Order: sequence, then structure tokens, then C-alpha cells
Amino acid sequence: MPAPLDPVDLTARLIRCPSVTPEEGGALRLLEAELSAAGFVCTRVDRGETANLFARWGAKGANRAFGFNGHTDVVPPGNPADWRFDPFSATLAEGRLYGRGACDMKSGVAAFVAAAVDFVRETPPDGAVILAITGDEEGDATDGTVALLDWMAAQGERMSHCIVGEPTCPEVMGEMMKNGRRGSMTARIEARGSQGHAAYPHRAKNPLPALVRLLDRLASHELDRGNALFDPSTLALTTIDTGNPATNVIPAKARAVLNIRFNDLHSGASLTSWLEGEIARVTEETGVDFSLVVKVSGESFVTEPGWFTDLVADAVEAVCERRPALSTSGGTSDARFVKDHCPVVEFGLVGQSMHKTDEHVEVAHVQQLKAVYRRMLDAYFA
Amino acid sequence: MPAPLDPVDLTARLIRCPSVTPEEGGALRLLEAELSAAGFVCTRVDRGETANLFARWGAKGANRAFGFNGHTDVVPPGNPADWRFDPFSATLAEGRLYGRGACDMKSGVAAFVAAAVDFVRETPPDGAVILAITGDEEGDATDGTVALLDWMAAQGERMSHCIVGEPTCPEVMGEMMKNGRRGSMTARIEARGSQGHAAYPHRAKNPLPALVRLLDRLASHELDRGNALFDPSTLALTTIDTGNPATNVIPAKARAVLNIRFNDLHSGASLTSWLEGEIARVTEETGVDFSLVVKVSGESFVTEPGWFTDLVADAVEAVCERRPALSTSGGTSDARFVKDHCPVVEFGLVGQSMHKTDEHVEVAHVQQLKAVYRRMLDAYFA
Repeated sequence: MPAPLDPVDLTARLIRCPSVTPEEGGALRLLEAELSAAGFVCTRVDRGETANLFARWGAKGANRAFGFNGHTDVVPPGNPADWRFDPFSATLAEGRLYGRGACDMKSGVAAFVAAAVDFVRETPPDGAVILAITGDEEGDATDGTVALLDWMAAQGERMSHCIVGEPTCPEVMGEMMKNGRRGSMTARIEARGSQGHAAYPHRAKNPLPALVRLLDRLASHELDRGNALFDPSTLALTTIDTGNPATNVIPAKARAVLNIRFNDLHSGASLTSWLEGEIARVTEETGVDFSLVVKVSGESFVTEPGWFTDLVADAVEAVCERRPALSTSGGTSDARFVKDHCPVVEFGLVGQSMHKTDEHVEVAHVQQLKAVYRRMLDAYFA
Repeated sequence: MPAPLDPVDLTARLIRCPSVTPEEGGALRLLEAELSAAGFVCTRVDRGETANLFARWGAKGANRAFGFNGHTDVVPPGNPADWRFDPFSATLAEGRLYGRGACDMKSGVAAFVAAAVDFVRETPPDGAVILAITGDEEGDATDGTVALLDWMAAQGERMSHCIVGEPTCPEVMGEMMKNGRRGSMTARIEARGSQGHAAYPHRAKNPLPALVRLLDRLASHELDRGNALFDPSTLALTTIDTGNPATNVIPAKARAVLNIRFNDLHSGASLTSWLEGEIARVTEETGVDFSLVVKVSGESFVTEPGWFTDLVADAVEAVCERRPALSTSGGTSDARFVKDHCPVVEFGLVGQSMHKTDEHVEVAHVQQLKAVYRRMLDAYFA
């Protein structure tokens, strides 16, 4: 029997693949080679510019098919000169592995690949192990996990439960798992008045006073106070732009963008109605017209606490000696797509250095994470 | 004695000088030639990129020295193909002269130059006639009329009263003169928070909610209701900019610009204090810091109604058969600089086509304007 697969070494090899979205960078090819060697049937499910990898060990259509989902693409490193080490060199220093993707989430992918490979070699299960790995999570995510799930549905491939391996722990390894996520929507608002000279405001219709009144009301509004499963919903103004260089000219238009992270007390539709109502009120007061374009990138969802969340928590507690809290906090992840396919829970590393310069991971944590995932597999097929 | 100087022909010759700010374009050289031939002592008072012309007929230091102020520079024509006629061709059609500067204000300059030349030739006065003509009124105006007045002060040159020949009539020739102007100031505000992920607003300090609250308060505030001499003060938000393309990122900074046109119930200093107070209040409420940079381009001023405004109004009424209303409305003009030198009143053409495509002037109005200026000179030295 081959030696166990070292997740730290595999992480380092993945970091050396420069897979900045949407570049494949060799990362999926590397995984395909490792998985094929262990008996996984691998299929590249590329769509558009995105490379994706589907891998299954065991029979198609198995009743019990444990899935892992993750991504090998990374955000750009910025200026490499700002890094302590080259961001694609995977340098080991003081017990940490440095590089873009070290934390988010080449280590997570390496950990579940290593756990799955060892598991099927050492204790071949009565069922299937499925890995759905995308090269587009950091980008638009339109041709990533969604493409994998579309393809799986068309092929009759099915996971019975799934773990997303994104970082979930705020500070300490093992402290948090995610059994849901808030929804996320982006609203683009344009206020439309009419241009004029700044000395004669009554002859123009300035869109800016109407826009700031609207945005002040939206930003000041308390959406809710959260509930047992969710944190409070939040609204963040992300940009306001006019682009008028002339200080003596009233502009004709101005634009703003806001992002709402919402719990299950709201939906994309209910929040859109609320925005439309506030806009209508300001139009009534000011005569300025608005356009509103809303994009709901995910509704809120929750995987109810039960035997599956217990299985995950038990595995974490056995390895990390700490029972993880269930949380629905944070941003979005591809779990928002997987939840329409099967029950999904997320567990992974400490996420503090995600997207930052000198991104790194504790080597010991990567080993722990592989052990956690292995315990989940053992328990699931026990 | 030479024939009277035709102000329409002189306007046409000036229009054919392409004097888009800061280009001299031959316009001041043309005037210098005409004025020198009539016995004016001419001095080019160039500063920086700007060409300016000072011309005096009569003795330096004369007790009575009637002044005219105007500019020969013009704003860019935009796309010449959008014009009915080439913007620098000075085409005459249906009793109108077309071209950039036809209205603002080559015709005004031509009218006072023609009036002054005829006047000193026909009835040489006991005193001086001074023309202070700049090539930078449409630009920053830092090296234009200000440079002329600086030079005059250094040389001991002095106007006892001055007419600025900018267009002053909203629709009908002769209906309005200006005996003052509101002040103008521009405030640049930057709100400074700290960047963060849109999903975790409590970990960032978003400058935008603080900025829109501040701007809503400023734009909603009634500065005053005007008084006998002035229209109400106005505040116009002219731009708000952030430049954050990422919908999942809270920006660190945002900027806004506003322009205030204020009457004599305020000053640049009092309005700056008001802005500082409102900013401090929002900082107190939100924790977001602001920077404020104020530029006062002119304080409000008024030339009190009296014999000088009567002299101007009488001249207008005699020619146009309509007594002009005294007004302090509108934007700024170089009168804001001249008022520190001597009493100043503005009278000129109907300004409707200023800065527009197909800018033009009624030929008959230019002749009327010359006659009005001539009557002022006659009355002043009578």
C-alpha cells in the first residue's frame, strides 16, 4: 500500500501552481493525477473560461456518497515585492507554510484529497466518495461549482451529504463550523436629475441631495436583530460615484452600490420591495427618478442541527479537543449552491490571513484538518 | 477725424482670433493696434501663461479715470461639426453674428473699445479712460484681472469707477445690470474610515454612511431666504466619488465636493465654521473622521445704489428705452476682483447663448451696447 498522502506537501505543490482566477495553473491536473492513481474516476467539467474537476471513488448512484467541495483558484497576490516570500514559492518558515492560497483554500483541498485518498485505500467503503473541485470560486462563480452541480444532475451523479472545506474558524482551530449562511444581494442605484450651473440650482434637478437622503435612510435602518440561527442582517454602502470634475456644474446622474447580507427573516424579494418603497418615497419628496438593479447572489439557508452536524462536530472535537460552535455568520461560499443538491456543512481552517499579503497556514493545522476529514469519512461509512 | 469704430466689425475680427483660454490668439494684439492708433498708451501685462492688456488714454493719476474691464478669452467650442457655422468664422446670418465669444464677451469688449476710441477722438475728456482686458477669465483667473490690478497698484494706475462688460441681461436687452454678486466657495470633503469585507461591517469603519448623513444635513439646510439686495444663498452638491469597484469591500475613503453661492448674510469664514461644526457632529455620532478643504473664490459684495448706479441705469434707459433692474444674482465675474479697486457695476448683453453651441449675438444689440457705453462716458465726464 502506498504511503499516506501528506497534505502539507500537497498544499505546497498546489501553491506552486499559479492558479489566479480564472487560470487553472496546473492545480486541477495535479489533483487529477493523485486521485486517478488512487482509483478515482476523474472528469474535467470545464465551462466557459473555468476549469473544474469531478472525481468519484465507488459506484455511480451509490446510496451513501460523501462529498467534498472546494476550490483551487486564488485571488491575485498584489505586488509580490510586498510579500516576505514569493507568493507562489510555498516557503516553509517557523512552522508555517506561506503563499497565496495557503489558507484559502489550497490547504483545505489538499486536506480532503489526502483524507479521501487514504480512506479509500485503507478502508474501502460501501458507497462513494465524491470530490467536486472548482477553479472559479473567487471570481463570478458562474461556471464553477454551479457548473459541476449542473453536470452532476445531468449525469445522475449525486452526493448524499457534502462538506465545503473553506476556512471557518475565526481565531482558533476547531472553534467554528458553518451550518448555513446569510444571503447576499447587491443593489445598484442610479439617481437621474438634470444638469445645470451650480449658481442656479433651481434651474437644474440635482440628483445628489436625493441620493444622499435615500442612502442615509437605508444605512440608518435596522433590518433586524438576528435570531437563534442567524446574526443580524447588515447593509453596507460600498461606493457612490458621480465623476463630475467641474465644481460649477450640477451633475445629471449619480450612482451608488450597496451590499446586503441577510438572514432568514428576509429574502432577496422582500428586500427588493423595501428598497423600491424607500426609493419611491424619496422620488415623491424630491422629484428625482431612480433606477434600481438588484442581483441576489444567494438566499440565506440553514442546515438544521441534527445527526449530520453532530457527525462533523464530533470529528472536529476528537481531533481539535474543542467542540465547534454552529454558525451562519460571514460571507457567502459555494455552500449556497450545494445546499440545493444535498445537506451541506462547512468546516475548515483559521481564516485570518485569507486574501492578505503573507497569506499562510500553520502546518499543524493542515495535518489536523486532514485528520478531521478522515474521521468524518470513517464515521459516515461506519 | 477717422470714421467711428464699428463694434460689429471689431467683434467679428476678434472672433476670428482663436483665443481659447489661455491662448492669446491675436485678440489682444488686434485691440492694442486699434487703441494705440487712437492715442491710448498700451502695456501688455502678461503673467504666467496669461496675456493681459492695459490701455490708458489721458494722464496717469487723473482724478477721474473711467475704467472698463472685460476678457477676450473664450471657452472651447466643442465639436465644430455641431455648429451651424465654423465657430471662429464670425458668420453673419439673419441679423446675428455667430461664433465662439460672440456673446461672452468679444462683443462686449468691442463695444467698449469702440465707444472709448470714438469718445476720446470726438470729445477728449478732462481725465482718463482706462481699459483693463484679460485673456484669462474663463480659466482659473489667477493671472488675469488680478494680475492687471496687481500691476496697476504697483504702477500707481487707478480707475475711479469701473464697468465690467459681461452679459447681464437674462432675456431682453437692457433689462438688468449687476451691482454686486453673491460669493462663491467650494468645499472638498473627504471621509476617512477603514477598509473591510462587506459581510463584516462591524470590523470595518465605513466612511459612506457618515458622508451621506453629513451631506443630507448640509443639502437640506436652508442657509437664508435672501434679503433686499440678494437672492437666497444656495448650496449645490456637485460630486461624490469613491471609486470602489468591489461590491464585497467596504471602502476606506470617499470624497465629496459642494459649491456654495452666498449672499452678504454669510462669509467664506462663517460658512467654513458651519461646515466644520456639522462635520464634528457627524464624527461624534459615527467615529468617522473627515478632512475639509475650502476655497473661497470670491466673497459677496455689493455696490450700493447711488449716483454711479443711476448713471449706468440712465445710459441704458436712454438707449434701450427700458430702465435696468439692479441685481446681484448669478455666478461670479471679475467684478469680484475689481470691487477691491474701485466701485464697479456690470452691464452687458443678453447672455442666453453663452458657452453654448451656435453662440451668437444680435447685431443691433452690439450697436446699442456701444451707444450705452458712450453715454456713460459722456455723462461721467460731463
